[in-house]
Amino acid sequence: MFSHLQYLPASMLNKASVIIPAVKLSELGEFGLIDLIHGSIVRYENSRQPPWQKVLVGIGDDAAAWQSDNHIQLATTDTLVEDIHFDLDVIHWEELGWKALAVNLSDIAAMGGIPKYALLSLALPDKLEVEDIAKFADAMVHLAGEFGVAVIGGNVAIAPNVVITVTVIGCSRGEAMLKRSTASSGEQIAVTGYLGLSAAGLEMLKGKPISDPEKINILRQAHFKPMPKIREGQILIEQGVRTAIDISDGLIADLDHICESSKVNAKVRIEQVPVHPVVAANFPNYQELALCGGEDYELLFTADEATIAQARQALNCPVTVIGDITEEKLPTRVAVVDSKGNIIPYKRGGWEHFKNGVPETKFA
Amino acid sequence: MFSHLQYLPASMLNKASVIIPAVKLSELGEFGLIDLIHGSIVRYENSRQPPWQKVLVGIGDDAAAWQSDNHIQLATTDTLVEDIHFDLDVIHWEELGWKALAVNLSDIAAMGGIPKYALLSLALPDKLEVEDIAKFADAMVHLAGEFGVAVIGGNVAIAPNVVITVTVIGCSRGEAMLKRSTASSGEQIAVTGYLGLSAAGLEMLKGKPISDPEKINILRQAHFKPMPKIREGQILIEQGVRTAIDISDGLIADLDHICESSKVNAKVRIEQVPVHPVVAANFPNYQELALCGGEDYELLFTADEATIAQARQALNCPVTVIGDITEEKLPTRVAVVDSKGNIIPYKRGGWEHFKNGVPETKFA
Repeated sequence: MFSHLQYLPASMLNKASVIIPAVKLSELGEFGLIDLIHGSIVRYENSRQPPWQKVLVGIGDDAAAWQSDNHIQLATTDTLVEDIHFDLDVIHWEELGWKALAVNLSDIAAMGGIPKYALLSLALPDKLEVEDIAKFADAMVHLAGEFGVAVIGGNVAIAPNVVITVTVIGCSRGEAMLKRSTASSGEQIAVTGYLGLSAAGLEMLKGKPISDPEKINILRQAHFKPMPKIREGQILIEQGVRTAIDISDGLIADLDHICESSKVNAKVRIEQVPVHPVVAANFPNYQELALCGGEDYELLFTADEATIAQARQALNCPVTVIGDITEEKLPTRVAVVDSKGNIIPYKRGGWEHFKNGVPETKFA
Repeated sequence: MFSHLQYLPASMLNKASVIIPAVKLSELGEFGLIDLIHGSIVRYENSRQPPWQKVLVGIGDDAAAWQSDNHIQLATTDTLVEDIHFDLDVIHWEELGWKALAVNLSDIAAMGGIPKYALLSLALPDKLEVEDIAKFADAMVHLAGEFGVAVIGGNVAIAPNVVITVTVIGCSRGEAMLKRSTASSGEQIAVTGYLGLSAAGLEMLKGKPISDPEKINILRQAHFKPMPKIREGQILIEQGVRTAIDISDGLIADLDHICESSKVNAKVRIEQVPVHPVVAANFPNYQELALCGGEDYELLFTADEATIAQARQALNCPVTVIGDITEEKLPTRVAVVDSKGNIIPYKRGGWEHFKNGVPETKFA
């Protein structure tokens, strides 16, 4: 889902008409583009907005939300593009079917919601083997079934390269949602599971030698078959947590999304970040992988200490407190500190499309 | 939306595991691919299907439908691919923004539904001009606003060529829907508006010379800025019509979808097909354009004579009866007859992706 706001100044967003400078998308970047689209919507809505739409969460969170008759409805969409998000020489078609749905389910998990229906849009070259598409469809339907999701429709079209768009529609449990905009100073920051495994898997797939077949399997699974934290998101809601995001762009980048939406700062204690033992043991850059790697699809959440302690009790997975939400002035919205409290500088990490065309994951 | 069923034999669809022959997508074709995906879903659902999903219409109609608390919910998705569905050297970006949403709204219209929310997924090359994307977004938001639709989220990704996927979520008016599967023998077949204009527009854009600026404008608008028949679909429901489809693949192809779903045959009287005067006057192949051209986004519907007469009264657009649903044995499910009742042979028309990669529009 669109995951960013306010890259363009508010003055531009709200103007009745905007003069767009003659620039290329590569200069504007992914987040600027999202703001541009958001600007079109805001300008239009300022002039006329039907009140019955009852939009509760629009652009700028993991999923959109609106008030239906008896429920809050949720919807999210995500696209995987060949050679940008996956390499057909490496990923198996069944892994692709799984991942294309999983990343969308993860967005519903990050809202604490219940996924219900999925739509699949496939743009495919006609030289593909039918057998491969069958594996793709079977894997997607299987994962959908794991979470009681019905694949109810979609679209197929011919295209020069593979582009897969999945849309998932769901609802919240009761009236509560996990949002990005509700973090407040003094809260703890916690994360489910371990980080860095997916990015380490990608390094392995790109050539980093790993010899143990069991480790190879763990790394590959983490990268290609992430398990969306649907039940975990619902448990967080039940335990009183209200702020969360799924880690898709990377820990720092996604925590920054929360901080931006909530207008707070965050301090992460690097030694407390839960790095998976396979990553720590085999990848010298394990901290960079855990902080900036992304695609772990774990849940990152904030709450007061007692609520986090309760959530940890209720959840069937590791929960680690990694830092605090703060009003403290920091050099960046998200600061990473060592065991002595000294700030460790880093270059902005996490995926951003269009700018350079590759993820920036520099951490030092 | 997926628009086809039963291309693969039922025996294959229902098997627990299917041996897929080693064939390319180009041999299977669009409708075969849809059946393949449908097969994955059917096989899985046969083993376990949560009853709460309450899917009313799955794959095989203009939109999917499910029972929500107080309403029937609708959802549809459609993709436009650069160089397959549009040529950036010809289409303006604002036309593209309009059309990408309009084709989805038309699917909701064909269910007689009310569109409410839209999600936009954009895969774009980074060399594009930001100004163009701004025009695209403004046009889409403007059309959304015309129908009270809120653009609530989406996704952007870098890609080698432009792929636009829009998902629209809506609801039915009350408990009634327009479906493809409810046509019955003895009913009349009717169509809103005029046919062939969009295909004629495409011929003009490909080089067919038209000199009158007003005609050029009508043809271009028909092809690039179709107006979805949202209100018309709702009026059809109110007047008691229950069977409809929007004309996207072409009159014959879309009527064939109704016949296939409803297990009936249809006879179209060629002289009654409402060809737009601009098409009739300037395109010698006007009958082919009207019968096979597609992308007119008019509504094609069936009902008894009295209901059609009532619908004609209630609608603010031309309504033309063009034939009958019949149990008669015919050489094809949809037969076209001349004024003397003689069958005119034609080659299967309408868009089908993957097979040959181009639309088949041969009519003779």
